[in-house]
Parts: sequence; C-alpha cells; structure tokens
Amino acid sequence: MNDGTQRVRSAASSRVEMTHIIQPEYTNMLGTAFGGQILAWMDTAASVAAMRHCGGPAVTVAMDEVTFSEPIKQGEIVTLCARIAYTGTSSMEVDVVVYAESIGMARREAVKACLTFVAIDKQGKPVPVPGMLPDGEREQSRFDEGEERARLRRMRT
Amino acid sequence: MNDGTQRVRSAASSRVEMTHIIQPEYTNMLGTAFGGQILAWMDTAASVAAMRHCGGPAVTVAMDEVTFSEPIKQGEIVTLCARIAYTGTSSMEVDVVVYAESIGMARREAVKACLTFVAIDKQGKPVPVPGMLPDGEREQSRFDEGEERARLRRMRT
Amino acid sequence: MNDGTQRVRSAASSRVEMTHIIQPEYTNMLGTAFGGQILAWMDTAASVAAMRHCGGPAVTVAMDEVTFSEPIKQGEIVTLCARIAYTGTSSMEVDVVVYAESIGMARREAVKACLTFVAIDKQGKPVPVPGMLPDGEREQSRFDEGEERARLRRMRT
Amino acid sequence: MNDGTQRVRSAASSRVEMTHIIQPEYTNMLGTAFGGQILAWMDTAASVAAMRHCGGPAVTVAMDEVTFSEPIKQGEIVTLCARIAYTGTSSMEVDVVVYAESIGMARREAVKACLTFVAIDKQGKPVPVPGMLPDGEREQSRFDEGEERARLRRMRT
Amino acid sequence: MNDGTQRVRSAASSRVEMTHIIQPEYTNMLGTAFGGQILAWMDTAASVAAMRHCGGPAVTVAMDEVTFSEPIKQGEIVTLCARIAYTGTSSMEVDVVVYAESIGMARREAVKACLTFVAIDKQGKPVPVPGMLPDGEREQSRFDEGEERARLRRMRT
Amino acid sequence: MNDGTQRVRSAASSRVEMTHIIQPEYTNMLGTAFGGQILAWMDTAASVAAMRHCGGPAVTVAMDEVTFSEPIKQGEIVTLCARIAYTGTSSMEVDVVVYAESIGMARREAVKACLTFVAIDKQGKPVPVPGMLPDGEREQSRFDEGEERARLRRMRT
Repeated sequence: MNDGTQRVRSAASSRVEMTHIIQPEYTNMLGTAFGGQILAWMDTAASVAAMRHCGGPAVTVAMDEVTFSEPIKQGEIVTLCARIAYTGTSSMEVDVVVYAESIGMARREAVKACLTFVAIDKQGKPVPVPGMLPDGEREQSRFDEGEERARLRRMRT
Repeated sequence: MNDGTQRVRSAASSRVEMTHIIQPEYTNMLGTAFGGQILAWMDTAASVAAMRHCGGPAVTVAMDEVTFSEPIKQGEIVTLCARIAYTGTSSMEVDVVVYAESIGMARREAVKACLTFVAIDKQGKPVPVPGMLPDGEREQSRFDEGEERARLRRMRT
Repeated sequence: MNDGTQRVRSAASSRVEMTHIIQPEYTNMLGTAFGGQILAWMDTAASVAAMRHCGGPAVTVAMDEVTFSEPIKQGEIVTLCARIAYTGTSSMEVDVVVYAESIGMARREAVKACLTFVAIDKQGKPVPVPGMLPDGEREQSRFDEGEERARLRRMRT
Repeated sequence: MNDGTQRVRSAASSRVEMTHIIQPEYTNMLGTAFGGQILAWMDTAASVAAMRHCGGPAVTVAMDEVTFSEPIKQGEIVTLCARIAYTGTSSMEVDVVVYAESIGMARREAVKACLTFVAIDKQGKPVPVPGMLPDGEREQSRFDEGEERARLRRMRT
Repeated sequence: MNDGTQRVRSAASSRVEMTHIIQPEYTNMLGTAFGGQILAWMDTAASVAAMRHCGGPAVTVAMDEVTFSEPIKQGEIVTLCARIAYTGTSSMEVDVVVYAESIGMARREAVKACLTFVAIDKQGKPVPVPGMLPDGEREQSRFDEGEERARLRRMRT
Repeated sequence: MNDGTQRVRSAASSRVEMTHIIQPEYTNMLGTAFGGQILAWMDTAASVAAMRHCGGPAVTVAMDEVTFSEPIKQGEIVTLCARIAYTGTSSMEVDVVVYAESIGMARREAVKACLTFVAIDKQGKPVPVPGMLPDGEREQSRFDEGEERARLRRMRT
C-alpha cells in the first residue's frame, strides 16, 4: 500500500521486463508496428515499475522524449525494459527502452521515452513516494537532471 | 499517393474526430482509463490526419508535450480531435486533444499531445509533404513556433 | 441522467463521428473488412448518439435496413456518422452511415443501417426521451416516416 | 471451392453452433452485453454457415429483422445457432438465434436476425450456390417466404 | 448454483460446441494458428461444460495430454467439442477436441487435451459435484481410467 | 535462421521474462484470471525462448504438467519466466513459471507447465536444434529426465 513511509529503494528492485511478438494485428499497411501499440505497452511496463517502487496505485501524468528511431517489423520480438529514473515528492519518472529483435539476430534499440507517474491513494489523492537510490554514475546523473525535467513539465501545464 | 507534389492544404481538410466508450477492459484498478490505451488511440487519430494531409503512408517519429490533466472514468465517452499543426519538408506535426464526457454532462479536456510523423514511400524513404495553410491567428502562431519545436526534436536524437 | 424532462433537441447536438483504420485483424480471407466488426462499430456510434440525445443509458432493441454496398479493404480508413432520425416515447432511431476512404482518394458510402434504442433508468425500465427537432426537409421527411417504421417493428416482435 | 456445381444441400449439413462467455469487456455500464458485440458474433456464425453451404468465400450483404428481446448479463453463456433459411442464385439467407444462459438455469432466446450473404470467387464476382433442401414444415415455409424477402431487399438498395 | 445436491448427469447435457474463424490476428509468421490462442479457447469451452455439469462456478486446476497433431491455417474454421469425461468429489475432467476445417473440405482432428476443473462456491471453497452417467462403452472406459489419472495429478502437485 | 548448425547454447541466453497486469477483461465471474488467458501467455513466452534457442521458427507440439496452484486476482501483476529445459534432435522443452504479485506484496508461484516445440524451416519440415548446456545441478537433472519425458510423449500420440 501507499503508506507514505519514505523508504529509499534501488531502481533494480522495481525494474520491469516485458516481451511481445509483433503479430499482424499490431502492424500497419507497411508491415511495421503501429506507434500507438508500442506506446500502450510502454505505459503498462512503466506503470508496473512505478507501482512496484511506491507499493500502491500510480497514474500516468506525462510522457516525454518519445523517440521512434527504428521501425519494428511483423514477426519480430520486442523487449521493453522499464526502470525508475527520478523520484520527487509524490511523482516518479520511469525510463522505458524498447528493443526489437529479429529471430537469430542481435536486438537493436527501437523506441524510448520517459513517463511520469503520481502515486495516489484510494481516493485519488497524491501520496509521498519512497526516494530512489541511484546505482552507478549514469543513473546518478540521470537522477540529478530529473529536478530540471520536473520544472519544465510544471511550466507546460 | 505520396507523389511529392507540393500542394498547400488547409488543416480542416485532414482533421479527424474519433469516438470511444471507456469499457471496463480499458480501465485500471481505480476504474479510470489506462494512459496507454489513450496514447494508442491518439496515435491512430493523429496518423489518419497525417496520412490525409500527405495523401500516403506516414510513420510516427516522435510524441511530445503529452499531458494527462483529468482522469477519465469507466463508462465515459472520449472524443479525440486531431489536426495538423505544422509541416516541414517531409515531417508533419499533429495536435491531438482528448475530451472526456459523462453522459448528460458537458465534455472536458482530459489529455493532449503533439505527434510528429514522416511521410514515406513504399520503400520507407521520406518524401516531401504538402505545405499547410493555417486558418486564424491561433493556428498561425502554433505553426510559426513549429520550426523551433522541430529544432529541439533534432537535438534530442 | 434520464430524468424524463421532455426537452426538444436538435439531431446535430448528439451526432457522432467515429474513425477507424482497417487493420489486418478486422479482415477476412479476401482482405476485406468483416461485416461483423463494422456492425459492432455501428452499434457503438449509434448508442453514443442515443445516449447523448436522452442524457442517460440506452440499449439496442432493433437494427434495420442494414445494407453493405461496397467492400472495405485492409488499410482503408472508415468514418462512421451517426445521427438521431426519429424519437418515440422512450425509443430513438439512429441512422448510421459508414464511409470508406483509401488514403489520397475521395471517400465512398459503404454500409448503412438504422438502429433503435430504448432509454432506460438504472433498474432497466424504459423512460421518456426528449423530442427531436428535424433540421431541413430531408430530416423532416425521414422523421415523419419514423412512425410507420416503429409500427412495422412492433408487428415483428 | 465455389465451383458453381448446383448441388442441393440440407440446412443441417452447414449449421453452426458457437459458444461465448459474457466477459466484462463485452458489457456496458449496466452490466449487460453490448449489442454490437452480439451482432459481430452473429455475423461470424452466419458467415461460417454460408461458407459451409456454398463451399467457398461469401460476404455479408444485408442483415434484417434484428430483434433484441432479452438483455444478456455479465457472466452468462451465449449460444448462437445459425442455419441456412433460403438460397437464391448466388445469395444465401442465414437465420441466427442467440440464446442466453445463466449457469444452473434454462437458456432463453435473447436475440435473433436474418443475414444475407453472396457467394463470390477470388476476384470478388458472385457465383451460383447449391440449392437447399428444407427439412420439415417450418423450414419449408420459411424457405418459401424467402423469395418475397429477397424482393424487398432488392427494392431497398 | 453449486448446492451440493449429488444428482447424476449425462455428459450430453453439458457438452459444448464452439466455432471460430482463424483470423490473421491469431496466426504466427508461418500463417498458422498460435498454440496459445487455441489453448485459451479450449479452456473456455471446457469451463462452460464443467459449469453446466455442476451448475455453478468452476476453476481450472490442471491441463493434461495436450497434443497438437496438425497445424491450423489462417482462414480455416475451428470447431471445439468439449464433454465431461470423469467426475470426482469436487473435480471434473473435460475432454476437448479441436477440429480444423478448410472451407469445402472435410474437417480433421488438430488438437486435443484433458482439462480438470474444481467446482467452488462464492468464497472459492470446493463443493461436491453431481456424478456422471457415461453413455456407451468408450465413455465408460474413459471414465473408469479417470481415477488413475486423478491419482497421477495428485502426485504431481 | 534454422540452419542446422549444432551449436550448444546456455539456457540463460534464450530465457524470457514477460509481464502483464490482470485487467478486468482477463477475469471471470469470481474476479480471478481465466486459465485460458494464462495458457496463451505461457505459450507465447515459451515460444520466444524456443525460437531464441534455435534461431528460427518453432511450433508448439505438446504441453504437459500444467498445474494451477494459486488463483490470480484482478489488478495483480503476473511475471512469466520461460527457460529451455531439454533439447532433442529437433524438439525443445521449455519450462514456464507464472508468478502473481499483489502490489506491495511478495510474489508467489501461481502456475507452471512444460511446453514442447519443434524447430521447423519455411516449408514446415523439422530441422535440428542446437544442444543445451545445463547450468547447475538442478538444470542438469531436469535435462537428464527430459529423455524419459520425450519417450512418454511419443507413446501418447
């Protein structure tokens, strides 16, 4: 439950891995995956990471830096990796990377984005979230820049 | 077809309206719509507007300024409105607004975002898109700022 | 809510527009859209128009004059337009037209039907619906014939 | 294949039975099945009966006499029974009845309709269908009235 | 309802027939049906048979002897037949056979399995189920071996 | 591609992790996940592991030892872990374990099964698969018993 206890948690403890096969129903006229389907999976993976981190319900409030760098083809396998990047008072940023893999070949980065969630109680009111313990230099600098990203998001609303 | 003819088109000629009912399958533990499902619908609505504008296939390359301002409840009706906001050489920006409506009540703005598409030919190569004729002051200023948004997106990649 | 207030409403105030892309999952062996999927979308579009008109829940009680005049192909865009055609005491008729559009081409009428809904309260009992203000000659004559269509439907049951 | 051989077939040899559980995703705010979902299943069941009868592809061209007499509740089981009612030159009428069943209770008739299909070849051209051998008085009289129903449908188009 | 009354029922009274068309969304890169989709349909068909037999809710506890003997191709029709094979105190075994049929051709057996269900009350506690009256020699011998299959399943847990 | 090269691979190199949220559409009248949906996900996870191991297409031929030990509730998160357990000439066994997790609680084992796949070429003919390098005692003994399990499966057909 979201009990407001300000524990500190590692990003590793809430990370999520998700696997899908690109079936025909997920593809457009060109035989490549619909962006919209990928976005939906990214939101699901990220929300599981956010809920694991805060131990209760969390809702999507923003999505940023969404970049589609590689088309994903029908029949390919996608692996989504989601991990907490930054935590504020009641908000959590989750980075998601989507890898595409043709069977028998190496996987490649295809899409990435950063989603923001707010932890809420059963009445839908925001509640505090545990802090996050960055693990390594890259995680630390990503966390440090989180404050600035949060400031930009607040300006946008 | 994407024949590269540089016609100029109004945003009105390609605008898209899309309606869905929030059925139980689209909702989470709190009885509100999954962000991911909304994102998928936004991508579909925006891609139809982009394809109508350029007259051929177009693929999602970016999604920006995604803001969820209001939760949408089970049983509510959502209306998505998508319209072209800016056109570059082969890219098109599409603004999408999602309205939520409780039957018998006025609708309210719930989510918005700006998606970027690139027009492609059958081999997946970018092709030029028609220009866009802004209609009114607000459309014109949104178009004028598009150059700057495109510059920021290029930096991100 | 269905409060029984006998307001009179224009058909324009409840009209619905709905857009879908014909993805592979909606098509049969011949690469054309399943009639069943189209029927399901028609019912959804029409039920939103009916609920907007009466301001509360409404259930499908009949579907008539369903005509499939043009096959719809994979990759095409369909636009459904639903508008109130006639109102009785607690029943509402909704006309739905489905247009098919190949990207870069003009849209064509592909399917049409007339659905009948009954407004109900939370216990499922029929409640009165607002009257309808026809707008123009064609709407008026369609409305005037509604009484006869209702009589034929009652005979069938 | 649709080889145009004018065999005569019994309705029993092509009849279809289809079973579904009404899961939450198929229901509306009132906890009853969406009409649209039921219509989609009816079209699928009827099209299998039509294809079995003619031995090749067939497309929906009309749907008539759709009557929803009983709401179907979440958790109930629906059984659809589809059987050929009439055959013309290249068209086939299929009657579909939908029964609803609450576990541990007797089933009740909930929806019925009559769908018309046209047998086609791979180019989408109509092809002749086998005749139909009615079995019993009720089937015979339903068949005999089919000519009149076909005449009314032709007037509508 | 699961009222514990130890009636004896014939397998025929609870048998289930289910029909699906193999649409593109159910197929893999080779154009054949996903095993997983077939397994999901088998579970649904079998659970309806089990619930009809016991007259109340029942949950899947095991699946055995799953054999895929024939690939099923896109566009083919599948018919699932489920019937009770054995009953214990509160458990029921259901045999399911999946037939594949290319339109215009005879159907062939493609998959089969034996699923075990336990009848439960609203609190999820096991309740007694009616006995089963085998009909014919083959049904009787399948029933007689059920005791041994149940013993093997208990060892596995 | 399935090129028949008899490489030896570790089970770790092909393991699959898959995450889903149990949405209302996946649940029955009791608010617990349908066995059939879980089976479908298990088949998908296992088939990705099999295809990664052999580097080409693979089809499900059997499913054994399916045991549902814990009901999974709506809103819970399921994590599926699939790993190669045994390899024959052209067949591969994959063990799948499904864990259920209530947000804020420890995960628990809910379902497990062993699926068998055969590697095939584009014509659907079986092709040899790489051997498997067991990692640790438990993996080794599971592998050693695989020969016996394969013998029992062959008897069943």
